[in-house]
Order: sequence, then structure tokens, then C-alpha cells
Amino acid sequence: MSEGGGRGLRAVALGGGHGLHATLTALRLLGDLVDDITAVVTVADDGGSSGRLRRELGSLPPGDLRMALCALAAPLTGVDAVAGGSPDDLWVRVVQHRFGGTGALAGHAVGNLVLAGLMDVLGDAVAALAEMGRLLGAHGRVLPMSCDPLTIEAQVTGLDDDQGAVRLIRGQVAVASTPGRVRRVWLRPERPTPCPEAVAAVRDADVVLLGPGSWFTSVLPHLLVPGLGEALTSTTARRVVVLNLAPQPGETAGFSPEQHLDVLSQHAPALRVDAVLADETAVPVPDRLRRAARTMLVADGTVHLAPVAADDPTAPRHDPAALAAALRPVLVRPDRGAAAGAGERRT
Amino acid sequence: MSEGGGRGLRAVALGGGHGLHATLTALRLLGDLVDDITAVVTVADDGGSSGRLRRELGSLPPGDLRMALCALAAPLTGVDAVAGGSPDDLWVRVVQHRFGGTGALAGHAVGNLVLAGLMDVLGDAVAALAEMGRLLGAHGRVLPMSCDPLTIEAQVTGLDDDQGAVRLIRGQVAVASTPGRVRRVWLRPERPTPCPEAVAAVRDADVVLLGPGSWFTSVLPHLLVPGLGEALTSTTARRVVVLNLAPQPGETAGFSPEQHLDVLSQHAPALRVDAVLADETAVPVPDRLRRAARTMLVADGTVHLAPVAADDPTAPRHDPAALAAALRPVLVRPDRGAAAGAGERRT
Repeated sequence: MSEGGGRGLRAVALGGGHGLHATLTALRLLGDLVDDITAVVTVADDGGSSGRLRRELGSLPPGDLRMALCALAAPLTGVDAVAGGSPDDLWVRVVQHRFGGTGALAGHAVGNLVLAGLMDVLGDAVAALAEMGRLLGAHGRVLPMSCDPLTIEAQVTGLDDDQGAVRLIRGQVAVASTPGRVRRVWLRPERPTPCPEAVAAVRDADVVLLGPGSWFTSVLPHLLVPGLGEALTSTTARRVVVLNLAPQPGETAGFSPEQHLDVLSQHAPALRVDAVLADETAVPVPDRLRRAARTMLVADGTVHLAPVAADDPTAPRHDPAALAAALRPVLVRPDRGAAAGAGERRT
Repeated sequence: MSEGGGRGLRAVALGGGHGLHATLTALRLLGDLVDDITAVVTVADDGGSSGRLRRELGSLPPGDLRMALCALAAPLTGVDAVAGGSPDDLWVRVVQHRFGGTGALAGHAVGNLVLAGLMDVLGDAVAALAEMGRLLGAHGRVLPMSCDPLTIEAQVTGLDDDQGAVRLIRGQVAVASTPGRVRRVWLRPERPTPCPEAVAAVRDADVVLLGPGSWFTSVLPHLLVPGLGEALTSTTARRVVVLNLAPQPGETAGFSPEQHLDVLSQHAPALRVDAVLADETAVPVPDRLRRAARTMLVADGTVHLAPVAADDPTAPRHDPAALAAALRPVLVRPDRGAAAGAGERRT
């Protein structure tokens, strides 16, 4: 649990998809501070290549797991690279490659098929991910939040003439893209078995990052897995929430930064966090976010605003180097880290 | 070209499927004699997983290539193992694993998908095979006979009431399983580009093995690729033909061992061989085989009869250890090898 002494921090990043990819890359860029990275990944995807594999083979949806592995293995091109990438990223390219054409394989990522094959042969998702990590030269571990494929269900309003009418929406794609307003999500099975290695990683971590990512379908689900949710609320690790840059069309359309925090609290009332990190331009009224964060923050908890968005006109996304720079003072406890101050501040 | 001195033999085995698998395993078992193994593999398969990938992606049919790589990588369980297998054959098992279920992936070997992905990304079948060989820890190289997928066509008789009527049959599966009698095969395109590395391997070899395997669809095609066929007829390497254990239902139903040789001669009149190896129980009249071999053998060429069949009641197949024992005296020139005699003999 100590971040001083001879070793670096043990960091666990929880999420899925592009948000987790950015966080993992940022953690790799902080190689002087963080020397052990574990990704804990949602396994509720039911769309695209992952959904097809899951339906066809009954396997864990491999897409988010594959992306996390590649984030830990891809060469770091930034000048701040410390951990370094594999000199030859051929296998990362192969694993990320999607088959073209118009046939039965079109759209499948090669790595999804390899992961499905490894899981078939080994009968053990954790061992399969470790083997794939070795193939890619991953700088860290990737774990599923549960070893069973999960289904997300949601209460959604605003889909009927009666705007208050509550509908049940099932499946990650359906929830993520609903034009209605998501009120609450839960998992099926409701009490899935957590991945023991993921629970242990959270318990043993020095710092735990939640978000960014699809809030209801990639970030929240971790808190709903029994054992994993409790590990997240009880770990002695520093807990950091990284907010999204913009509301996501569909599941969080029109959500303010404060509402993102409210939703976390509603789903995990016991969760207390040490820091909330948000992009400075994505927070219209910083004081409102600070007020909303108060109920969730620990006594010396802080809200950090920093420029973390990439200059990408096509889609809002975190810039890994900027995210790394913003995370640096956040990862270390204010009372111990030389570079960190206390209380609310602007990094 | 010399088999004396400090280094072992450079061996090239040409074929496809299970026959090539047996030959490659046998060559590995002769690690004290052979220190460089290259497989040159047919690329005309149009059935099963390979056929589906070929039609869907336009790639080389990967199945025979994958099997050859696994033959060079799988652990050698025999007591005679010299080259040794990888201590952990996990990737061989994954690559050979076929997806189950009833969906779009059912029946695809994971390794076929990985090879197709590597070829897509690298745009170079030879480089893709080298990379896959590294992954598996293959003890040798696998090359395609051509970098273009090929189609086999055949003249077949016996399909009509008029038993002499000649029909055109197209495709490896159709030719291999025809109830008629195959008269002649050729390739489409008729003059495909050979794989330059395969041509060079044959030219630089000390010994070249042709067969066993599906005679018209896995063995003969090598002789029909311009450049490769010429390399086979002109190389200074010792040429060895390994005959099948039994006529194959379909393409060589009812063929005697002599007819197998006749067919080779008809398709490659310039081919001269140094040795013909056959299973002793598969040759009813040894003298008839010796007479038939005479037109094809070089001056000091030999016919070898040895017990090379596995004790497998389900299907005739070569036993790699027995094949290795039978090949040992055949691979070395009679005038140089200490263990080899001259002329026709029974090993």
C-alpha cells in the first residue's frame, strides 16, 4: 500500500473500450511512478465481433480484453515514454486487425478469435489472457471482472409518450444507445462470480482508477459485481474517478459531470473516492462539480481540473500524455507525495 | 550439396496434409542426420476451413501450411526424439484447435485464422509463415509452393455410361473424391508464379522427398508449378519418392504402387529419382514395382521396401518412427554414406 520506498505504485484501472485504453496508456507513460499495471475489464459486451463470439461460442466477449492487452503492449510513441513499447509491434497489429470482405468473418478482430481459442483450449480466461499478454509483450496484466459473460439490464425512461414510464432495456449495446434516460443498471446474473485475481488486485493496489468510459455499461458494472464492488469500496488504495470528456450519445446524453458522480453514488452508496479528475473544458461550472463531489470524497479528497482532451475534431477522447500529466499529482497521497498539495486545486 | 563434413543434411519435403506431417516428423526424428528441414506445401485446397477462408478472404488456403508448421513444432514423444519439441506445446494446441458450435466459426482451426490474419497484415505469405513458425517454435521452415492460391483441374473418365468419356473436374476436393478415374491434372492458373524461396530451397537441398500424400492433389502439383518443377528435376539433391500405403478412395482408388510411379512420370517426364520407398506390405509384387521404377530411377537408383505403416486399424498412415528408420539409409548417397549399400535392397 505504500507508495514510498524502493518500488513504484501498483495501479489498477477498471473500465472497458477506448476509455480504458487511454488510462492504461497514461499509466504506462508514468513508468517512473507506476511499476505494476492491472486492467480489470467489463465482460458484458454483446455487440459486434465480441457479441457474435459470445453468442456462438459462449465465451467471454473478448473485444474489451483484447483492446486492454494492446494498450499495454503497443509501442509508446510519445516523447515521455518510459516503460517503452515492444520494438516490433507486429502481433499487436495482427491482433487488432479486422477481417474484411462480406463473409462470415467480416469484422472479426483476429485477436478476438485467438483469445476465444486460448480460452477454449485452456478453459481459463485468466490463463488465456496471461498467455496472450506474453505473445504481445504486454507491460501489465489484463483480467476480466468476472469469468462469466454478463448481461446488462437497465431501467430507462423517456421512451414512451408518458415520459415517466419505466422500460426494461437489456444488453450493453441497447443500453449504451438508448434514446431514453438510463435510471439504473444491474447485471444478469445479478450476483456473478467475480474474478478472484481482479478482487485481489484491487485489494493489493496502491491506486485504483475508475473511468473514463461508457458510464453505465463499462464503468458502473465493476461496482455491481459482488466481491469486486466490496473490494473497491474497502481497499486501502487511493481511489480516483476520471470523468468523461462529454456526455455519451445514448446512455449519458445530456448528463452533466455532476450527474456522472450522482449515478456512481446511487449505484454504490458506500463508495468513497480520494480524487475526481475532469477535463477543465468539460466542466462548465467547477463549483457545482466540487459541491456534487463532496458527498463522495473522503475528508482530504480533491477535485482536479486539467486539460486532458486530445485535439481530435472527430470524437472526444483523452490524450494519453495529457492524462498522464494530470494523473501524476493525483496518484500520490497528498500527505506523502512530494509533488502533490492538499485540498481542492487546479493542476 | 555435400552430406559429409561438419553439417547435417538439408532436407526439403514436398506435399500436403497428413502425408507431409508424417514425413516432417520422420525428418525431425533423424536430427543426427538432418539439420535443416523445409516443407513446401500445396496451396490448392478448396475444402473445409481452408476453402472457406480462401473464398472469403482471397488468401492462400492455410490448412496444409498450418499442419506442416505444427508437424515441425509439436513435441516429439518417441524415444528416438533428437531435435526435441517445445517444452510447452500450448500454441500448437491452440493453433490446431477447431471452433465448435453450429455458427459461422464452426470447424475453423484457430491457426488458419491466425495465418490468414498474418498474411493480411504482412501482405507476404513467406513472412507470415516465418512469424507463425517463431510463435510455435518450429524446427524448420514452411513455404507455399506458390504465393497465389491455385485451382486443380483434372481429366476424369468412368463417370458416364460411356466409360471412356472424359470429363473436366475442378477443385481439390472434387478431384480427390471423384468416383471416376483421374487421367491427368493441371493447375489454374496454368503457369502460376512459384514461391522463390521454395525454388531456392529445392536447388540448395541435399535431399528432396516427394510424397506420401494425395497423389494427384498434394504430390503431383509441385511438379506442375513452373520453376519449382524444373528445380525438382534439375537439383543436385538426392530425390526420394515415398509411396502411399494404400490407394486413396477417390483419386487413386484401385491404383497399384506402379501406377503411382507411372502417373508421376506422365506428369513430369524429365523427373529422375534416386530412391523409391514403399511399405513392404503395400507392394504385392516387389519385382513389378522394381520394373516400373527402372524408367524413372537414376543409374544407381534403388527401390526400398520397409515396414513403415502405423498399427492403426482406423486408417492407413505412416508411422513417423518407422518412416524415419526406413529413410535413414535412403537419405544418404550410397557411395558416401557409411550405413548405405548400393543397388536394390531390402532395408
